[in-house]
Amino acid sequence: MTIVETEANTDGARRYGSADPERDALYADIAQHHLQPLWEMRGLLTPTPRVASLPFRWQAEHLRELASRSGDLVPIDRGGDRRVLALSNPGLGGAPYISSTLWAAVQFLLPGELAPAHRHTPAALRFILDGGGVYTVLDGDPVVMNRGDLVLTPSWTFHEHHNPGNSSMMWLDVLDLPVVAALDAIFFEEGRSEEVDQSVAPRSAAERRYGQGAGLAPVDAREELPAHSPLTVYRWAATDAALSALAETSTTGDVSLRFRDPVRDRDVMPTLRCEMRRVRAGVATPTDRQTGSRVCAVFDGRGTVDIDGESFTLGSGDIFVIPSWAQHRLHAHTQLDIFTTSDAPVLEALSLYRSATEANT
Amino acid sequence: MTIVETEANTDGARRYGSADPERDALYADIAQHHLQPLWEMRGLLTPTPRVASLPFRWQAEHLRELASRSGDLVPIDRGGDRRVLALSNPGLGGAPYISSTLWAAVQFLLPGELAPAHRHTPAALRFILDGGGVYTVLDGDPVVMNRGDLVLTPSWTFHEHHNPGNSSMMWLDVLDLPVVAALDAIFFEEGRSEEVDQSVAPRSAAERRYGQGAGLAPVDAREELPAHSPLTVYRWAATDAALSALAETSTTGDVSLRFRDPVRDRDVMPTLRCEMRRVRAGVATPTDRQTGSRVCAVFDGRGTVDIDGESFTLGSGDIFVIPSWAQHRLHAHTQLDIFTTSDAPVLEALSLYRSATEANT
Amino acid sequence: MTIVETEANTDGARRYGSADPERDALYADIAQHHLQPLWEMRGLLTPTPRVASLPFRWQAEHLRELASRSGDLVPIDRGGDRRVLALSNPGLGGAPYISSTLWAAVQFLLPGELAPAHRHTPAALRFILDGGGVYTVLDGDPVVMNRGDLVLTPSWTFHEHHNPGNSSMMWLDVLDLPVVAALDAIFFEEGRSEEVDQSVAPRSAAERRYGQGAGLAPVDAREELPAHSPLTVYRWAATDAALSALAETSTTGDVSLRFRDPVRDRDVMPTLRCEMRRVRAGVATPTDRQTGSRVCAVFDGRGTVDIDGESFTLGSGDIFVIPSWAQHRLHAHTQLDIFTTSDAPVLEALSLYRSATEANT
Amino acid sequence: MTIVETEANTDGARRYGSADPERDALYADIAQHHLQPLWEMRGLLTPTPRVASLPFRWQAEHLRELASRSGDLVPIDRGGDRRVLALSNPGLGGAPYISSTLWAAVQFLLPGELAPAHRHTPAALRFILDGGGVYTVLDGDPVVMNRGDLVLTPSWTFHEHHNPGNSSMMWLDVLDLPVVAALDAIFFEEGRSEEVDQSVAPRSAAERRYGQGAGLAPVDAREELPAHSPLTVYRWAATDAALSALAETSTTGDVSLRFRDPVRDRDVMPTLRCEMRRVRAGVATPTDRQTGSRVCAVFDGRGTVDIDGESFTLGSGDIFVIPSWAQHRLHAHTQLDIFTTSDAPVLEALSLYRSATEANT
Repeated sequence: MTIVETEANTDGARRYGSADPERDALYADIAQHHLQPLWEMRGLLTPTPRVASLPFRWQAEHLRELASRSGDLVPIDRGGDRRVLALSNPGLGGAPYISSTLWAAVQFLLPGELAPAHRHTPAALRFILDGGGVYTVLDGDPVVMNRGDLVLTPSWTFHEHHNPGNSSMMWLDVLDLPVVAALDAIFFEEGRSEEVDQSVAPRSAAERRYGQGAGLAPVDAREELPAHSPLTVYRWAATDAALSALAETSTTGDVSLRFRDPVRDRDVMPTLRCEMRRVRAGVATPTDRQTGSRVCAVFDGRGTVDIDGESFTLGSGDIFVIPSWAQHRLHAHTQLDIFTTSDAPVLEALSLYRSATEANT
Repeated sequence: MTIVETEANTDGARRYGSADPERDALYADIAQHHLQPLWEMRGLLTPTPRVASLPFRWQAEHLRELASRSGDLVPIDRGGDRRVLALSNPGLGGAPYISSTLWAAVQFLLPGELAPAHRHTPAALRFILDGGGVYTVLDGDPVVMNRGDLVLTPSWTFHEHHNPGNSSMMWLDVLDLPVVAALDAIFFEEGRSEEVDQSVAPRSAAERRYGQGAGLAPVDAREELPAHSPLTVYRWAATDAALSALAETSTTGDVSLRFRDPVRDRDVMPTLRCEMRRVRAGVATPTDRQTGSRVCAVFDGRGTVDIDGESFTLGSGDIFVIPSWAQHRLHAHTQLDIFTTSDAPVLEALSLYRSATEANT
Repeated sequence: MTIVETEANTDGARRYGSADPERDALYADIAQHHLQPLWEMRGLLTPTPRVASLPFRWQAEHLRELASRSGDLVPIDRGGDRRVLALSNPGLGGAPYISSTLWAAVQFLLPGELAPAHRHTPAALRFILDGGGVYTVLDGDPVVMNRGDLVLTPSWTFHEHHNPGNSSMMWLDVLDLPVVAALDAIFFEEGRSEEVDQSVAPRSAAERRYGQGAGLAPVDAREELPAHSPLTVYRWAATDAALSALAETSTTGDVSLRFRDPVRDRDVMPTLRCEMRRVRAGVATPTDRQTGSRVCAVFDGRGTVDIDGESFTLGSGDIFVIPSWAQHRLHAHTQLDIFTTSDAPVLEALSLYRSATEANT
Repeated sequence: MTIVETEANTDGARRYGSADPERDALYADIAQHHLQPLWEMRGLLTPTPRVASLPFRWQAEHLRELASRSGDLVPIDRGGDRRVLALSNPGLGGAPYISSTLWAAVQFLLPGELAPAHRHTPAALRFILDGGGVYTVLDGDPVVMNRGDLVLTPSWTFHEHHNPGNSSMMWLDVLDLPVVAALDAIFFEEGRSEEVDQSVAPRSAAERRYGQGAGLAPVDAREELPAHSPLTVYRWAATDAALSALAETSTTGDVSLRFRDPVRDRDVMPTLRCEMRRVRAGVATPTDRQTGSRVCAVFDGRGTVDIDGESFTLGSGDIFVIPSWAQHRLHAHTQLDIFTTSDAPVLEALSLYRSATEANT
């Protein structure tokens, strides 16, 4: 847990200023027995969340340029088996996390490269902001990734990434790593890269079983289901069509779609919620806030986002973070399609989710 | 409840044959106080279900011919507001039910006709075996029905049927009417036919919100959901594609798809389960049995079905019933697509569902 | 299903009065192919439930006297293995059911008698209106029954009744038999009476594991749970104390307690709800109605009940039935303790439960 | 999140040792844009959890003595409104937490003192190791606390502590504070101390409604239920009786009871699990491990506990912590009653719970 909440006991200045030898002796004995007096602490309980993470936006051009340069200079087989640049929140004192609960990064793979198989308890997802052609193998099931696709890598699923094509590819990774680390529940295992037919099927096995259509599922689906969505990829064509259908009848010009387990009443994974939002050109959204943090990626369009009084311009490929309980609001200059991942399922499961909306004025 | 279970107390022959005036007096007093002695009853509790419904198959040609003749002779505005022929199980002594728990019927609508709006607590569904063009209005949402579509009319939903085209249309209706009647929970209300744009949208509002793709749902979906699936129509194109995808990787040539609430982990309606099965030409299925009854419609193909030792030929448009606990098995002569509705959600909700499968020998 | 709903198609008078040979031929062909025209039916769908069951009350003195005379004249080993008088609703045309969905009966056991072991899919419960000392063995677990106790015999549980004492004993049985019969799901099996220690423990094994206190359960409880409450007996002392505690702070003088699965969020059994109500002397309750039927037993006290305009006096040991959707209201002359069983879990599971309350005027 | 997981990026030694100006420039640009290269990090993903918390045990005599001296020297109205000594895990670098996910402390109240009303999103519980007489007011409901009682202070419930008697009192507090802090979801509000009848009722309102007996609940219970157990106190007499009943039939001499929501199928609060374990004198338990941490308090008895190879003697009133994934095993010298609180509901909700048991050798 972050020390930030308990700064009082680390600063030297004791609240009770005057010298008192008896109390000093007590305090020494307390410390010696691995105890700490609550009445000398500060910041444990605050009226609203005291959030270290800051609002921030990373611009697409920098992400692409630095990823590309890393591709030139850093081989894939170095630490972590992945060529990944983590978005590091400026408020977190150098931790490689985009917020206190989320990891976000861009991953870059050159033509012909293979990021080898492993699995871990932190759950991951990929959202493809641009390009395509890399395929991920999920417990033996190859999944081609293309622009606008959302691909899950659920907890403890073996995964590896192949780039069989002629172009390099970059995508967004989001993980619940900080949550799993905070719970002391990190497990990791290397895998063997599987022999996969290079002529990968355009549809994964998961799609063929669970991705056929709304409300259609194999009769035997119920018995074999894992803790996460059995559908591990959501294709852009369907997402786009669904957003268009919602937008057709929207009076506000602000519609949102949630990616869900197609069989059960739940988010795609126990720790991560995924949504896609489409805001019509010219629309300013209501001001929202909620507990838990959000990673947002601009899939398409231009606009601005205001987060706790700070304003950021937005263009395609930009990534921004909304810390817990920060007020936020979008202005769409063109039609704006934004992909969002959050830890909301965690907050909801623990009955800690709160939200507030202010009507647009 | 059916008297069939208690025949003993209606037949004259008392089990205890010998005359005994004291006992006769007791029996008279028992009867006078609206009591009945258990020890004189028969058939209340049997080792396995004693089922009055018989296996039976109705052939398409008869259904079509009789529906068509009814269209010529009987106006739509007569009793029930519907031109409907109920499939009456030969074992149920003249009751208009296809089994002890299900109502099944063919409905026939002439060009230009309107079956006016009403609603009732029994839940209904339509499956379109042939033709198309009629639209049903469900609580104001127009739904065009075409071949292979499944359309729900959930409990207490206003519905009316319009035939704006030039052809008459026939479809299969299935209701849980006997269950709702047995529970003394029938409510009925006439509605006002709504002004609906005659140029009906090809996609209903329900489809636009909930039918876009597997695992995609509006963010606000959770709050407004009724007791039944918010998606009220399942189109044949998606069903067919999903069956094909399942069949691609099937080793048995026998695949089944369940129609489900696309948002929640449940059947389309609390009382009715819907499935579509595709059996490859030449395949004989395992022999199954289960508690609860099933109405099956041959959507396409030819074959036979054996039900408790009786064999029926099957052709497109035929409808058959599988009574509770009857053994049944399909033989597909051509590829066989069969739509099935059952009361399984009722049996499961009450922990009364049992099933058994015998491997094919 | 009861024929009552379809009387129209059995009565000779066809709605379409005038002779028409072509239609007559059609009707003959329809009938020959096991079809029935909806437009000739009556009573299938009614504005509110058309309920055959009538409100009725059986008086304790008659139940006791007739049960006792049966004890003198009828040995236990006759049909059904039980000496049981079924309460037969006067509206059900001789069926041995207290309502369309419930079986209720008084059972009588002489000193030294044994009602041998069997099990069946219909679920049963016993409520002890008077006396005590008989023990029931539930899948090997002996449960002594005394005044005010509620004892479950869940679906497919072996049970047998022993009377080791010197007094005969009578109790109330309620079963969901009509529901299970309507669903064609009756299974029955004879059992072997088990060797049970005659010096029966005062607490059953179920009580020792699950009946210790509110919110206390063995850590391994979750894994072994059946479809019904693992606690199979609810003792009067606890029920009485709980009613008193509720009554202490009640402003209406009308409190109700529900018997529940102590581990899970549900009724004691999937088909039967059990409640105990205490109405203070002088209080008249609001007028209620709901779908589904209720069997009520006066455990203690005197008063009246009005059911759909009919008034019945009530005294200790009386049993009455409230049919579906009937309006009912209690007037307590003394403090009135009433045990109620209903099919409400069935109606709720199928989303067919409706209720309405009118404030007392 | 703890920096501990990312030590690599804080230590100066870069993995890629050799100087490379181009790469240095890249790294500088990466850092400038608030990015971090994964391949330079260490310790993010480990084969098993790398847990900072250490096994530790605090002895009763020290806790009592230091709490008592604090009572003499520190007035109650100082910071935090509570006289609380937090158990600080020696592995957490000075954080006032007993493990990475749990806060544990002893609280001490002098005769006549009042710890004023407040509420916060972190959930708390009290377990009374000794003494009694203080009462806590929970949203207006006074709850007397005595030896062996478990009292909940669920998230966002106003609570205050009164000591109306003549003796000081000490008890154990456990909170999920580190979890709520890690999720940036801390809210806090001061309350007004309510006018409460000093002659506190021996049973709280919660007990009168929900604490009467296993499986008994007010009929209207379902509608008013909060996110936590509506029963907020579990009395020692019931706990002890339930443990005894379980122990009667135990073959291992090692029984555990879980405190549960008496109405719903869940733990007492969304983040905290509470159990009471009784180990017979002479018994050594199997060796267990699980993800998530545990705070244990010896309610009664003597023995030892081995945690990851370290052995601690145990006596009444001692408190110890079992870090995530640590192996642990108890040896009971006398009968040993141990109260345990864990974060297991959090791990389970997020599908991160793992456990392993080794049979005793």
